[in-house]
Amino acid sequence: MTSNSNDSVIFVGDKQPMSYVLAVITQFQKGAKEVFVKARGRLTSRAIDVVEIVKNKFIKDVKIGEVKISTEQMKGEKGDVNVSVISISLTK
Amino acid sequence: MTSNSNDSVIFVGDKQPMSYVLAVITQFQKGAKEVFVKARGRLTSRAIDVVEIVKNKFIKDVKIGEVKISTEQMKGEKGDVNVSVISISLTK
Repeated sequence: MTSNSNDSVIFVGDKQPMSYVLAVITQFQKGAKEVFVKARGRLTSRAIDVVEIVKNKFIKDVKIGEVKISTEQMKGEKGDVNVSVISISLTK
Repeated sequence: MTSNSNDSVIFVGDKQPMSYVLAVITQFQKGAKEVFVKARGRLTSRAIDVVEIVKNKFIKDVKIGEVKISTEQMKGEKGDVNVSVISISLTK
């Protein structure tokens, strides 16, 4: 696995939550001090699930920092659509 | 409409987001200083949509305060299930 400056951002997509839980744990094991879990649209609820599973089942001492919500414009089939975005900071 | 101490909490459910947007606006019009938008499970993404619509389309000077995420145990058909919860504070 290559290392780059985006390593500590996990974008939550359509896979099972556990895939992203493992991705977060891996980042901390590789020495990350802060990991951001991000998602768009209906997947924002999955990002919250991922963070709660990490905290409750795997890394009990992880701290949930700032939870930011915002809106991004994305190009849809019928023009631009507004999509909600979440970014959750996790630190050890 | 009757007034009680829960007036400033809006629970987001299965209706269209605009129903909850209007509920939030109504609370502020009735003099609420702080309104909490809460939701559980997959509806947490709808709570974020509601807050973003209020802020971007209706009450431009509303401030998004603390966004709390947590887990609640709910009784499901096959025993207890963990459900993610979001609570978003809005102030004017």
